Amino acid sequence: MEIQLLCVGKTDRSFWHDAVEEYEKRLRYFIKFSIIYITDVKSYKKTTSRKIKEDEAKLIFQKIKSEDVVILLDEKGKSFSSLDFSKEVEHYMVSGNKKIVFIIGGAFGFDDTIYEKFSKKMCLSTMTFSHQMVRLFFCEQLYRAFTIINNHPYHNN
Amino acid sequence: MEIQLLCVGKTDRSFWHDAVEEYEKRLRYFIKFSIIYITDVKSYKKTTSRKIKEDEAKLIFQKIKSEDVVILLDEKGKSFSSLDFSKEVEHYMVSGNKKIVFIIGGAFGFDDTIYEKFSKKMCLSTMTFSHQMVRLFFCEQLYRAFTIINNHPYHNN
Repeated sequence: MEIQLLCVGKTDRSFWHDAVEEYEKRLRYFIKFSIIYITDVKSYKKTTSRKIKEDEAKLIFQKIKSEDVVILLDEKGKSFSSLDFSKEVEHYMVSGNKKIVFIIGGAFGFDDTIYEKFSKKMCLSTMTFSHQMVRLFFCEQLYRAFTIINNHPYHNN
Repeated sequence: MEIQLLCVGKTDRSFWHDAVEEYEKRLRYFIKFSIIYITDVKSYKKTTSRKIKEDEAKLIFQKIKSEDVVILLDEKGKSFSSLDFSKEVEHYMVSGNKKIVFIIGGAFGFDDTIYEKFSKKMCLSTMTFSHQMVRLFFCEQLYRAFTIINNHPYHNN
């Protein structure tokens, strides 16, 4: 199985980038994992947030194959404990799925066409975080999930 | 008013440290803010987690004055939205409190004496995070709270 994280927004060349890269590296020890960055849709003065979301949705759809399992990171999604999230990931692995794609939306969230197409949603926190933080947050949780699945001592640190 | 974040555990000299420092700096624009690190209690082979928590609790109590408002960051605590958390912080500010102390416990959590003394608990996520991540997570939320209170555009980024 392969896991992809699809992010709308700029790549950041700071400590955020270094931190995310650290977890990317660690994750690859357990699974084929990659992060795909979809560049922000340019917003001109007269561009509405609705138009931006529509354009971002088109770019997201281009990256998804029909057989992919897609999970949106969304504040309206299901909350998990780290243990339950690891069970969820393990469930996808043993169910013969080829690829799971987690998607972090842009600054204005997801377009309705995305919600209509993909019903699986998970919520990392009831709080709102910067996009860089959500990426880091997610990568750490996914790494933690694999350490739980593989009985690696990290989770009890 | 003053806000302190009391952390049990080592100071980290990596991207975690840089990221936390960035939010520390930004927070000081809005409020007197400091992070106090309580060094891990040394764990020898025969030290139990209970003994470690007891020793850490003693060090925590030394740092708290009777008039301080204390809030434990704890998985059994109340979940907030970022907006509700900002209202909570604002509430403490207008209620004439001199200092609020948020505490992040050590690797084994808090000793029972801490729970008995301090009843206010808040939960950042249903998921478990590394201690470095929780510090960063909290500092970003506190900064976000002050940007909301002060109508700074950060929260809508």
